[in-house]
Amino acid sequence: MASSAAGPRVLVAGASGYTGALAARLIDRHPHFGLAAVTSRSDVGVRLDDLYPHHRVASVLEELDLDRHAQVEAAIVAYPHGAAAPVVAALRERGVRVVDLSADFRLRDRAVYEAWYGQHGAPELLATGAYGLPELHREAIAGADIVANPGCFPTAALIALAPLARAGLIADVVVDVKTGVSGAGRAASATTHFVSVDGNVTPYKVEGHRHAPEVDQELAALGAPVTSTVVPHLVPVDQGELVSCYVTPAGDLGDLRARYEDAYADEPFVELADAPPGPRDVRDTNVARLFCHHDRRTGKALVFCTVDNLWKGAASQAVQNLNLMFARDEREGLWP
Amino acid sequence: MASSAAGPRVLVAGASGYTGALAARLIDRHPHFGLAAVTSRSDVGVRLDDLYPHHRVASVLEELDLDRHAQVEAAIVAYPHGAAAPVVAALRERGVRVVDLSADFRLRDRAVYEAWYGQHGAPELLATGAYGLPELHREAIAGADIVANPGCFPTAALIALAPLARAGLIADVVVDVKTGVSGAGRAASATTHFVSVDGNVTPYKVEGHRHAPEVDQELAALGAPVTSTVVPHLVPVDQGELVSCYVTPAGDLGDLRARYEDAYADEPFVELADAPPGPRDVRDTNVARLFCHHDRRTGKALVFCTVDNLWKGAASQAVQNLNLMFARDEREGLWP
Amino acid sequence: MASSAAGPRVLVAGASGYTGALAARLIDRHPHFGLAAVTSRSDVGVRLDDLYPHHRVASVLEELDLDRHAQVEAAIVAYPHGAAAPVVAALRERGVRVVDLSADFRLRDRAVYEAWYGQHGAPELLATGAYGLPELHREAIAGADIVANPGCFPTAALIALAPLARAGLIADVVVDVKTGVSGAGRAASATTHFVSVDGNVTPYKVEGHRHAPEVDQELAALGAPVTSTVVPHLVPVDQGELVSCYVTPAGDLGDLRARYEDAYADEPFVELADAPPGPRDVRDTNVARLFCHHDRRTGKALVFCTVDNLWKGAASQAVQNLNLMFARDEREGLWP
Amino acid sequence: MASSAAGPRVLVAGASGYTGALAARLIDRHPHFGLAAVTSRSDVGVRLDDLYPHHRVASVLEELDLDRHAQVEAAIVAYPHGAAAPVVAALRERGVRVVDLSADFRLRDRAVYEAWYGQHGAPELLATGAYGLPELHREAIAGADIVANPGCFPTAALIALAPLARAGLIADVVVDVKTGVSGAGRAASATTHFVSVDGNVTPYKVEGHRHAPEVDQELAALGAPVTSTVVPHLVPVDQGELVSCYVTPAGDLGDLRARYEDAYADEPFVELADAPPGPRDVRDTNVARLFCHHDRRTGKALVFCTVDNLWKGAASQAVQNLNLMFARDEREGLWP
Repeated sequence: MASSAAGPRVLVAGASGYTGALAARLIDRHPHFGLAAVTSRSDVGVRLDDLYPHHRVASVLEELDLDRHAQVEAAIVAYPHGAAAPVVAALRERGVRVVDLSADFRLRDRAVYEAWYGQHGAPELLATGAYGLPELHREAIAGADIVANPGCFPTAALIALAPLARAGLIADVVVDVKTGVSGAGRAASATTHFVSVDGNVTPYKVEGHRHAPEVDQELAALGAPVTSTVVPHLVPVDQGELVSCYVTPAGDLGDLRARYEDAYADEPFVELADAPPGPRDVRDTNVARLFCHHDRRTGKALVFCTVDNLWKGAASQAVQNLNLMFARDEREGLWP
Repeated sequence: MASSAAGPRVLVAGASGYTGALAARLIDRHPHFGLAAVTSRSDVGVRLDDLYPHHRVASVLEELDLDRHAQVEAAIVAYPHGAAAPVVAALRERGVRVVDLSADFRLRDRAVYEAWYGQHGAPELLATGAYGLPELHREAIAGADIVANPGCFPTAALIALAPLARAGLIADVVVDVKTGVSGAGRAASATTHFVSVDGNVTPYKVEGHRHAPEVDQELAALGAPVTSTVVPHLVPVDQGELVSCYVTPAGDLGDLRARYEDAYADEPFVELADAPPGPRDVRDTNVARLFCHHDRRTGKALVFCTVDNLWKGAASQAVQNLNLMFARDEREGLWP
Repeated sequence: MASSAAGPRVLVAGASGYTGALAARLIDRHPHFGLAAVTSRSDVGVRLDDLYPHHRVASVLEELDLDRHAQVEAAIVAYPHGAAAPVVAALRERGVRVVDLSADFRLRDRAVYEAWYGQHGAPELLATGAYGLPELHREAIAGADIVANPGCFPTAALIALAPLARAGLIADVVVDVKTGVSGAGRAASATTHFVSVDGNVTPYKVEGHRHAPEVDQELAALGAPVTSTVVPHLVPVDQGELVSCYVTPAGDLGDLRARYEDAYADEPFVELADAPPGPRDVRDTNVARLFCHHDRRTGKALVFCTVDNLWKGAASQAVQNLNLMFARDEREGLWP
Repeated sequence: MASSAAGPRVLVAGASGYTGALAARLIDRHPHFGLAAVTSRSDVGVRLDDLYPHHRVASVLEELDLDRHAQVEAAIVAYPHGAAAPVVAALRERGVRVVDLSADFRLRDRAVYEAWYGQHGAPELLATGAYGLPELHREAIAGADIVANPGCFPTAALIALAPLARAGLIADVVVDVKTGVSGAGRAASATTHFVSVDGNVTPYKVEGHRHAPEVDQELAALGAPVTSTVVPHLVPVDQGELVSCYVTPAGDLGDLRARYEDAYADEPFVELADAPPGPRDVRDTNVARLFCHHDRRTGKALVFCTVDNLWKGAASQAVQNLNLMFARDEREGLWP
């Protein structure tokens, strides 16, 4: 089963997980790209719409066979970190342009990667990947063979903090994340059991979350070398995340609101709201919705940003990246 | 760790599941019984309050050792069906009086049991068990060695239907059950994943649920030999269940409300409400809350009953049964 | 603000409620229709995307002014019953074709209407309205000036029951409805307070719901004159509904599954599933998803149907009807 | 209706709200105190168990009549701020010892109070009230006529921060609060509508929450004069709250865990957990559950504390205070 669009054909590898399945749906409905195949390591032979009726993609999950499946122009790889690197490398070798949803190509510094994730599967390619946050790296993404789709927390946190980082205004930052359960993936566990989550709010990885070095790498590149505090909390929400950023400024914040208006006036997928946002505002969209406040009592800048962790935090951002890589309008297949 | 109560000591076998753990807590706080030990097949060596902080029972889960653990007057067994029967039989042989939370001793007819559950582990004892619904079998429970605690759906359905069954007024009945996720147990699965349950309502076992023959056995004993339709639906609720019973009457319903008032005037744990009830009304209690309505348009009797599936539907009803077996006030340790 | 589509322009009157706002969004994005204006009785001057950021419709709510607003080819009216009839009548008089989301034109029999809803505001038009369930009345809808969009429960119940009704196979039916809270509308009340709903399941209108006569009217028209039992239950779900239909058959059910496959093979928005469905499967779509089972133990036919109460149960079905009224492909603006 | 306990009789004024109703229940079941009467400004004549079936308190709500109702030894007043002060003053004048759940007697500095709440109704009594956090002010509470029960956020935040404040170790602190919807009270509003809350997480009062000056007052008194940042977020939870405290230390933190163990070794209602806690761990209890972590990457101390906002955050803490005021064991009626 493939969609009828006439443009580049796209493989989605690892399509049985939440983000891969959504990527398959978005490609399947895309006016330009066509869905070439969906593969899975765990559910070979299963129809995608049996796993996820609401995506309405009738394709059957296949075992990945590079000889066959690499006959495409592009791929979205939704493997766990570690497992992704070799697949991405093999696809690239065959001339396939890849958006990788894993962490494998996000961190430029191999030592940092290995401190948080363990050994890297294709370290020679670490320098190759563009960091796939279009709002920061539009040009690099357009020309890249490998685009490392950001983590969902960094996506929201960096959109929240970039205007301050660029101005060198971040002396210290606390990022308190509230994340929906789909962020933990499809695997059933005590953590994702309804009875554990319902009526509850639980901090986790308080000793340091893997998304922190990703945030720090990008903030430093923008001009704000800090060690951020990133603490996620699991909330009883299926989809969506909110980051609350508490910034101790390194200088005069000026007109905070104007700074954000300037920064994002032309961004198609960033909204500056008049009131604090929440995940419902952006559910099932590629939108990041922001609110900023300069707290005169404490001098801090408070910035809140919400995204749908499965969309802008993963699958739809991957399609936004593909649009850029193939010189399409960035909004194609994603708007409204 | 044991509570300080001076009365009979109670073993809870299978205390790492939801219902066993709650039974342990209720015994631990009981003014008369003492908690002798808690055992588990899966979590030996773990402290119960590490698994369930909110129960605040510090006992360590042990492997069941009959020589040691059967030195008690009573036991609550919270094993899966099939696995329960041999343990119950062994405890009984050693003179321990048992409340069994499994299905193993609920059905009197071995053929019926085996049609729904497979081979029985101690068929010679099938006739021994009292059906542990105090509102129907108070005397039999008081004298029994083995009390088969009812399923959570039959608990609510039978309290809802008994007044009509006794009067021979049930020609046909549909029992539409809405049940919280804890009813599916502690095991993590696709079914109990927060993302599957949230925002959803899913019928299951529509081809026939094991609780149906249990309902039918007891309705027949009361004077209403019917084949009931029992269809459970999983709702995004952690704890609690509601049964909606649609009765086609076999005769004149008379004053329906008065019939229910008469039936339950003296029952300490049955409430007849003035409006349709819901699980919030009975959360963390041993109460069954009822509402009945005679629909003049269709002639049907509609009866709604809600219980907490972990409490009146399981663990607290087990304690109510123990109270009866040891000639205590039925409400002890359970009220308010 | 108006969309750029070149076809008929559509007024949405009563766009500050859940269903009206969604209708405005669907028209705003429709490839053929254009959104002419949005009106409200309660929020004049407010931007729709301030009330509902996730709909991303920037139009400002206006007070209804027929002289100005009736300069359109079509209107969707989302007023409460009683208040809708005069507005619908006035629009029709000015040559506007109307889809009415209220109950005012659903019931053909004035006496039945007035028994359930009180006095009718335009009884002379009662015979005019087509009952807007495309799966039953496609032709009548195409030619009608006034289309009475069905209630959300009847939408699901009738799709579930029509194949049996047409064959005269319904002797009796119980429709147990589980409905999300958006069905109660945007008004804040004790009933819709999060704390009342969370962890709860509550039957309501057990003495008879207004959607019952609507179901009965249509079943009778199909060949099954019954008095159905329709009991809704509020569940902790924001959007979506499931109806569980328990049918006592009036004859031989035959091959139930084949009957449903035949009935719906060509329906673009009806899905026959292989397992019981739930609201998550159809969220934010115009799809009705069905499952049927012939219970050999009881002889009953069990049919489950889920729709999104705001979409197929209201706003997207209104657009489906508009598509038919203006001879467009029924799926336009609604698929996928 | 009154309970049978022989000790001091307690009036609950304002018992139709969430916290007042729970206070009534706790007094009703208390082994020492007796419930004298329940009053309400909005629901006179209503039975409390019609409003709150799960509390099972059959008392009828009366209009407050000081001549009659002040014939008691003690009162719990659950009025909104502003409205509470005159009632508290009047009761005190008649010799009634009062626990006040409002903010009216929490802030010692009238100017601070009036900056956040408006004019004070009994400013001459501001110096009288003891701040009712037993873990900080046990002795003052025991001897006070008026005990100002803390806000729910300060309760958790101060228990989290007191050990660091006493050691002068807080240079700066961010308190990110996640709170359940019952914290917003019983009044129905757009904010508390299920559809607004479900699937959402929303920051509010980001420009400054009234609980911040309360936290600052107490931290200063302990030795840490800071201006804290307190930002609440509404989460889809009915009951419970979690505070995440990010402390920039003013000196060497030393052994953080040992510091907390020392601080709370003898506190009956403070638990130091081995993993981050969540509201489920303390639901329906008077327990505050803590976790602390010294983040070596950033130098910060992270402290998480969860309480049930209706219990330890309000009604059960009021009873804990009453126990102290009447020289009872602090745990009476509250444990387990």
